[in-house]
Amino acid sequence: MTPEPGDTRHHVVIVGSGFGGLFAAKALRRAPVRVTVIDRTNHHLFQPLLYQVATGILSEGQIAPPIRDVLRHNPAVRVVLGEVSDVDPGGHTVATTLLGGAKVDIAYDSLIVAAGAVTSYFGHDEFHHDASGMKSLNDAMRLRGQIFGAFERAELEDDDARRRALMTFVVIGGGPTGVEMAGQLEELSRRALQRNFRRIDPHMTRVVLVEGGDRLVAPMGERLSRLTARDLQRKGVELHFGAMVTGVDADGVDLAQSDGTHLRIEAVTKVWAAGTRASPLGAKVAAATGATLDRSGRVKVEPDCSVPGYPEIFVVGDLMALDDLPALAEVAMQSGAHAAHTVERRLRGDTTMKPFHYRDLGTLAVISRFRAVAKIGPLQIGGFVGWVLWLVVHVTFLTGFKNRFAALARWTISFVGKGRYERALTGRWVVDQDIPPGSA
Amino acid sequence: MTPEPGDTRHHVVIVGSGFGGLFAAKALRRAPVRVTVIDRTNHHLFQPLLYQVATGILSEGQIAPPIRDVLRHNPAVRVVLGEVSDVDPGGHTVATTLLGGAKVDIAYDSLIVAAGAVTSYFGHDEFHHDASGMKSLNDAMRLRGQIFGAFERAELEDDDARRRALMTFVVIGGGPTGVEMAGQLEELSRRALQRNFRRIDPHMTRVVLVEGGDRLVAPMGERLSRLTARDLQRKGVELHFGAMVTGVDADGVDLAQSDGTHLRIEAVTKVWAAGTRASPLGAKVAAATGATLDRSGRVKVEPDCSVPGYPEIFVVGDLMALDDLPALAEVAMQSGAHAAHTVERRLRGDTTMKPFHYRDLGTLAVISRFRAVAKIGPLQIGGFVGWVLWLVVHVTFLTGFKNRFAALARWTISFVGKGRYERALTGRWVVDQDIPPGSA
Repeated sequence: MTPEPGDTRHHVVIVGSGFGGLFAAKALRRAPVRVTVIDRTNHHLFQPLLYQVATGILSEGQIAPPIRDVLRHNPAVRVVLGEVSDVDPGGHTVATTLLGGAKVDIAYDSLIVAAGAVTSYFGHDEFHHDASGMKSLNDAMRLRGQIFGAFERAELEDDDARRRALMTFVVIGGGPTGVEMAGQLEELSRRALQRNFRRIDPHMTRVVLVEGGDRLVAPMGERLSRLTARDLQRKGVELHFGAMVTGVDADGVDLAQSDGTHLRIEAVTKVWAAGTRASPLGAKVAAATGATLDRSGRVKVEPDCSVPGYPEIFVVGDLMALDDLPALAEVAMQSGAHAAHTVERRLRGDTTMKPFHYRDLGTLAVISRFRAVAKIGPLQIGGFVGWVLWLVVHVTFLTGFKNRFAALARWTISFVGKGRYERALTGRWVVDQDIPPGSA
Repeated sequence: MTPEPGDTRHHVVIVGSGFGGLFAAKALRRAPVRVTVIDRTNHHLFQPLLYQVATGILSEGQIAPPIRDVLRHNPAVRVVLGEVSDVDPGGHTVATTLLGGAKVDIAYDSLIVAAGAVTSYFGHDEFHHDASGMKSLNDAMRLRGQIFGAFERAELEDDDARRRALMTFVVIGGGPTGVEMAGQLEELSRRALQRNFRRIDPHMTRVVLVEGGDRLVAPMGERLSRLTARDLQRKGVELHFGAMVTGVDADGVDLAQSDGTHLRIEAVTKVWAAGTRASPLGAKVAAATGATLDRSGRVKVEPDCSVPGYPEIFVVGDLMALDDLPALAEVAMQSGAHAAHTVERRLRGDTTMKPFHYRDLGTLAVISRFRAVAKIGPLQIGGFVGWVLWLVVHVTFLTGFKNRFAALARWTISFVGKGRYERALTGRWVVDQDIPPGSA
């Protein structure tokens, strides 16, 4: 872990290899710096397609390219597998536990913290035991095992009530992830599993989407929310608005409804897509630098994404609180690149403060085959046109990936067709696993 | 789990969904029977390509299609996830623990036992803890985590000796699996990981192949053995013949060499491809029926693959001892189909005993990109022509799979090219896991 002796180039340490960290590293391509990217996993993760891994359309590798492979053409970038637990802004180091367990302090000249967000159970971390999040590959693989395992167990079940519980899927949270997951679970049961079973009819699957507020994909505006709700209902998804989850156990969920009544839904598989909170590293950065956190635990930064009083420390992406910007991949990419460009400008001697301006390129969510909703500036697009747009944007993103052809080929065949090829249950994933929230 | 009331068709129970079980089920397509296939996993496994899953070329789903999806067009076939632990030939039932834990006795009219083989550590099951087998998806996923994790840890390691141990891979067993694995590990280090690392040079990887006898792929004949050894050595694989493994621990292996000396190899990753033994179900069948087992624990059967004295019980594939037939996919397919045809003939009233005759279609092993060895009857083919043949045969096999296009596309890109896309380390697979031998 010792740096190359004699390498006196300015050292940029980037914590995290999500969209923020990756775009920061890429933006430093031609800068006279050496870069160290630290992440707990060996892969970047294309989170918008995580639900397709959970439902057997794509394989892990198709949405999770190795970071060091993505950055292989930049010899100045080093990738380190480890977990950053603290920052020492005075000593200019980050405390890191490397893969294998060794603890080291890694020195930086500039630091870009892009540690992102983890699933939030709103103070009920114990819910994680029975309701998997949707933030990591582990989450998706756990859900894949639960979903396909539930159909297998339903096929063997003689008790009617138990069989119904096995074939009931509750998705908690009506944002894009929850909407896409609910839509895909309906697709799966109505199309992909046709003729696969002899005793159960996958058409009898019940998919329930629970939303605490009164609208789905709320930031997209009322019209698209309505469109989304209508499309999901037509597909057969059962919607519950204004319902708060008060309990989650192995057999189902308890909801407090807006009219004051209590509702119990018996369901073996629960997906928690209700919210995220900032990575705990944000609190460490704040404690060390005196910065303040917003309600979601994000670090309030200066207009140029730097931490107040520490111009060499930047916080970007989902961990950054600035101008009420939403936690979107696009914001992470742009703020990561902005921090990188600021470092580069300073090294050229340009120390003027250049504030970060987010350019909103639009928001998208897919509801089902051929139906999606999109909001692009003043435009609000639904249905098939929205879906084509969603396709174009995701294909463009995937284009940055080395394995785009195979992914696209498979994805097209699976998503437009009805195949779900990634259904192999390996022993470890059939059984419900207790992986703590926020693990990679 | 209760059968449909009123379904009085002859009930064929097939234990196992490997090549033997699957081909038995498919051969019963037009027979007036109902069929139950029982397996511990939800997938068939194309074992010859398991090493490509372990080395990141293919995803799990690409070599492991869901059994019920493969058999979806035959409504008379039911697939049950469970483990058969015993046979009651008098009561005509198999004792089965279903997924979820329920224990049931499943009644049969005819029984085809195709439970296959598991990894054999030759009486040293404790070796499993530090040397993964190569028989199941779990084995392959564990190895994938170990292999790519070893390079990650080597990149972080300051100690020279430890770094060498992390970059040393010992493959035990010189059969087709060991040869293919060793060749692919060399490919990986010399081509696929290029430019990925900054501190280590993957070219410094040491791949050691240990064989107890004096020849590789021995059943293929002396000429092809020599060719295989030469090709592997040219690629850089280190060969040790006449070496017996006397110890395996977390840090390396101990070998007793043919000249009486002891050799210690420091290596973090060990692959056990040295041997298999019959599934424990074979011993249960023998105990219940009075049949005898051969040295490998396989059940000695009549010439028509039935158990002596029990014409309605068949043992096929790797679990069958007949005419010294080798444990090959081709033997399993043909014997599985033979048993099925015997059942069908009897139902038509034809009770003549028709012995099973294996038609040898040849044996193949791939050494590297563009190099393989093949033995087809009197023909012995090596080098590029052997490889083309290997390709044709595997493409033909994959053609039976629904996802052949995506698999082929990815496989061609990865194998002929240098990409290894399935490298995402999920938390559970990075750390070494102790999955008991023979688990799914």
